[in-house]
Amino acid sequence: MKLQLAIDVLSSEEALALAYKTRKYVDIIEIGTPLIKHEGVKLVRQMKALFPRKKLLVDLKTMDVGEYEADFCFEAGADIVTVLGVADLRTIEGAIKSAKKHGKKVVVDLINVPDKPKMAKKVKKMGADYVGIHSGIDQQNAGQSPLKDLKRVRKKVKVPFVVAGGIDEKNVGRILRQKPAVVVVGGAITGAKDPKKAAKCIAKRLKGR
Amino acid sequence: MKLQLAIDVLSSEEALALAYKTRKYVDIIEIGTPLIKHEGVKLVRQMKALFPRKKLLVDLKTMDVGEYEADFCFEAGADIVTVLGVADLRTIEGAIKSAKKHGKKVVVDLINVPDKPKMAKKVKKMGADYVGIHSGIDQQNAGQSPLKDLKRVRKKVKVPFVVAGGIDEKNVGRILRQKPAVVVVGGAITGAKDPKKAAKCIAKRLKGR
Repeated sequence: MKLQLAIDVLSSEEALALAYKTRKYVDIIEIGTPLIKHEGVKLVRQMKALFPRKKLLVDLKTMDVGEYEADFCFEAGADIVTVLGVADLRTIEGAIKSAKKHGKKVVVDLINVPDKPKMAKKVKKMGADYVGIHSGIDQQNAGQSPLKDLKRVRKKVKVPFVVAGGIDEKNVGRILRQKPAVVVVGGAITGAKDPKKAAKCIAKRLKGR
Repeated sequence: MKLQLAIDVLSSEEALALAYKTRKYVDIIEIGTPLIKHEGVKLVRQMKALFPRKKLLVDLKTMDVGEYEADFCFEAGADIVTVLGVADLRTIEGAIKSAKKHGKKVVVDLINVPDKPKMAKKVKKMGADYVGIHSGIDQQNAGQSPLKDLKRVRKKVKVPFVVAGGIDEKNVGRILRQKPAVVVVGGAITGAKDPKKAAKCIAKRLKGR
């Protein structure tokens, strides 16, 4: 089980510093959606140059021109990109096509998809590497969490899951029992007084130590 | 009726040059979604500094943290941002809240929304300034166009419409008859041999000359 650090601050310097502090415990560094829109693809190149042995995910949340957006991200050094499950199937296809072309990977993020098991099955067939079970921050603020969705979808579809949405030291145990491939943690690490300690603590749980 | 130029190239220099060449005929300069992800918010500041009298739209296509993404875009100089109609209603609310706070505007883009008239009514009530009727590029490549959707939604909801999706000199006449507030043109201008001439030609049609 891998730990993905979602970085949603708005400065490259802060983002790079967070990746550096937590590097010992994090498997996948995520450049969050607001961060890529704020800083651009230059940060993808910087992150890859500084942490060449980490996997780098750019949370593009692509809604159109799937191949075009994924292409420039992979070319800048990303290993994984995301595309929205609410997008047109041709957009999802485009992102997957780009990933195959570059030998890289795609997460189809099911945020706000009404019938998640159905869409998970569909994108698995289309060749998606991962399915994202994700409660957005605006949804978390209204009390939602990804656990129920993960349980429900997992019963019906066998595919590697990436799970995200308000995961912290307290609730990570319940998530782990569902055996996702990747656990995404954001604020519980990036907003902690000591991000390194917070990352270490959650990483230990993931590795079962 | 206003002409919006959608710029989806991937370099700031090219984007600024396109805005400069077409400035006499364009009312709203749009920094497209791939372009903002590629170049970041720095381009918003540059565009606003160079063209202070033009309206500047950033096609954020926000899917989560509506207020957070809109906030930093307005603070960098954007006049209008977009949020996705397929997003959680709280995300749309957040973007609208940010716009009211800054005295700026929001387009709710109905790309891939299944029941467009229903969602148009809903977001109008929520305080959206514009409703976007939009066939994505991946959808255009499969033969879709926004005209049918525009006709259908317009019959049921009175709200200022922004219409986008493969609009060019040939098909703009049919769009104009539906009286949208804003007509978005991308490739037909940015991909033309002479972007200035192409913009002039379409602008004339919009102004009824």
